[in-house]
Amino acid sequence: MAQISASAGALLRHVRTGRARSRADLVALTGASRNTVSARVDQLIAANLLAEGGRGWSTGGRPPTLLQFNSRAGCVLAVDLGVTSVDVAVTDLSAQILATVGHPIDIADGPAPVLAEVDRLAQKVLAEAGLAPVDVCAVGVGVPGPVEFSTGRPSHPPIMPGWHDYPIPSAFGRFGCPVYVDNDVNVMALGEVGIAAAPQDVLVVKVGTGIGCGIIVDGRVYRGAQGSAGDIGHIHVAQPDGRTVVCRCGNENCLEAIAGGGALLRDAVAAGLPVSTTREVVELAAQGDGPTLELVRNAGRTIGTVLAALVNFFNPHRIVMTGGVAQAGAPLLAGIREAVYRRSMPLAARALEITVSDAPDLSGRVGAALMAIEEYLDDDAVQQTLAP
Amino acid sequence: MAQISASAGALLRHVRTGRARSRADLVALTGASRNTVSARVDQLIAANLLAEGGRGWSTGGRPPTLLQFNSRAGCVLAVDLGVTSVDVAVTDLSAQILATVGHPIDIADGPAPVLAEVDRLAQKVLAEAGLAPVDVCAVGVGVPGPVEFSTGRPSHPPIMPGWHDYPIPSAFGRFGCPVYVDNDVNVMALGEVGIAAAPQDVLVVKVGTGIGCGIIVDGRVYRGAQGSAGDIGHIHVAQPDGRTVVCRCGNENCLEAIAGGGALLRDAVAAGLPVSTTREVVELAAQGDGPTLELVRNAGRTIGTVLAALVNFFNPHRIVMTGGVAQAGAPLLAGIREAVYRRSMPLAARALEITVSDAPDLSGRVGAALMAIEEYLDDDAVQQTLAP
Repeated sequence: MAQISASAGALLRHVRTGRARSRADLVALTGASRNTVSARVDQLIAANLLAEGGRGWSTGGRPPTLLQFNSRAGCVLAVDLGVTSVDVAVTDLSAQILATVGHPIDIADGPAPVLAEVDRLAQKVLAEAGLAPVDVCAVGVGVPGPVEFSTGRPSHPPIMPGWHDYPIPSAFGRFGCPVYVDNDVNVMALGEVGIAAAPQDVLVVKVGTGIGCGIIVDGRVYRGAQGSAGDIGHIHVAQPDGRTVVCRCGNENCLEAIAGGGALLRDAVAAGLPVSTTREVVELAAQGDGPTLELVRNAGRTIGTVLAALVNFFNPHRIVMTGGVAQAGAPLLAGIREAVYRRSMPLAARALEITVSDAPDLSGRVGAALMAIEEYLDDDAVQQTLAP
Repeated sequence: MAQISASAGALLRHVRTGRARSRADLVALTGASRNTVSARVDQLIAANLLAEGGRGWSTGGRPPTLLQFNSRAGCVLAVDLGVTSVDVAVTDLSAQILATVGHPIDIADGPAPVLAEVDRLAQKVLAEAGLAPVDVCAVGVGVPGPVEFSTGRPSHPPIMPGWHDYPIPSAFGRFGCPVYVDNDVNVMALGEVGIAAAPQDVLVVKVGTGIGCGIIVDGRVYRGAQGSAGDIGHIHVAQPDGRTVVCRCGNENCLEAIAGGGALLRDAVAAGLPVSTTREVVELAAQGDGPTLELVRNAGRTIGTVLAALVNFFNPHRIVMTGGVAQAGAPLLAGIREAVYRRSMPLAARALEITVSDAPDLSGRVGAALMAIEEYLDDDAVQQTLAP
């Protein structure tokens, strides 16, 4: 639905995303009066978030003065917390990485030592970029487990012992800025979508040990009633041969029990392949080993039957596959596409793109930065600063 | 994500939905300055959309002056176009019906005669309500087929011969106001959700001859990339007995081929029940006929297996069942709930409500009115009128 807003945050978003390059563009785009637009643009210039520079093409009359988003008006810290490693980056306000550093950790050591390490890394990247804590406008953190987004506290995370209900934002108190925490799949989904000029509806499906999905509606993360949206790993899939597989959740024939990384390893071992980790299965497939390729393709088909239903329901612009198993690439995609195109409605499938992530290692950091930037620039604190 | 806007439309929405009752509430809710809020509230009062009246409770200091949405600042026309009948209503700006009238039609007669009848009915309801065409701020129309929302043209509607690509808005030219057209399931979904104070994520599932779903994200219709979101009738469902049913779409074992109204009738006839329409099947179930109850409950179970997956993915606050087969009520709900609670993740299912529509006959008209009202009050035309 058309929801045209001419708030300062909305005008800034139009310039940031490249939809508008001048005051005239903003007037045309929002329907607000020239005076309103100009007053708010002047506020954004005074706040150093917009800059004027150069002249555009004239379409009759005086050529317009071009507006540019000043992505160097501040910086954000982006933290991509994994089970065995953490990456910290400092980026500008367009999520360009200025400095980044990674370090091994063990998430099971609990919040205190892990977040102390994160703080050390944060100081390091800020120093490397020649920035000070006071320059940090916002912090974004992705963690490998469910999070109550409004408080930044993990909620019974299965693979983060000791982290339940821990107030992660408190660890960043010395930056004196907002801190946003979300689960890694939602954060990676933002990273995959980037700062899109055309707000799109996208599914980012992570196939690692488990299977999860980040849902992007109109360029933003969709979380649902309890924040558990995208939890597709436990959708039931019928097995053609009537086989029953018990999932770690206790239910039978969940998607991830049949087609996740753990399942892939189990089936490879059962087939006598010389592997002991999921990564080795993916590497064997990359080497073109026939039986392994067939296992991966079958996992893709199973994932595809679930995605086919979600394509009919959600009608996304695109689906991006990521996570360790997605590194298998072509055979996984082939299986997914086969099932999706066989079972989805033609209208929904016609223009649908299904791809593997280009930069799976970066999307966590870029997504954490984008989460922080988007929340910060839309935040009431900023609105308040800018309101007349 | 927090997207705090203090545009006039946003302030109006807060008062309309009961979230704010005073300028102070609006300041607290949006984070905008007292001056900004007051200036925009004054504009809304000048435009007759808000009125001041009475005093609220003081929480220290002078008691606040209460703000009220003036739902009689204008009216909208709501048109619920069915296959065999049309209902037209005139409502105020809070979707209260002021006058309504229905008439039998045959949608297959094509747009010209059907829309001429709609125009006759529109004149009648306006006269009954003591209103003139010039009082109409917007028109909302629901039709039984897919529609390109941006143009209001049906797109290859299977049961509306002659309507493909017809510009429905042109039929309302004499009202000189915006006209919004959408498919009946999306419109009914808005009608079920109403003007919710708490924006919710809701699925409205219509089980008639076919099966479709209206998706409400944060109180608004979600449409997807090609506008086909919610097309759940052709999601594949595995049959426990390995049976294969060919769907009218050409694919096998689509949800509606197994559990839609047509399928229910087919199975009832095959079981030797004395019925010749789906309505008779639903009536037999309402009378407590054992074999019919079992058929309906089984259809519910099948629908529930699909909804269980969608609950994991979408994590809705609630699911509302509507359409002719939903009239069967308890046995259908029992089957649906059984499958959903068995197969959905506990977190997503915990607080989920699954109900049957209270007022299935009204939701089409109320939804068409709400679509028109929401679009109209958020529209750039209104924003432009109000912008300083």
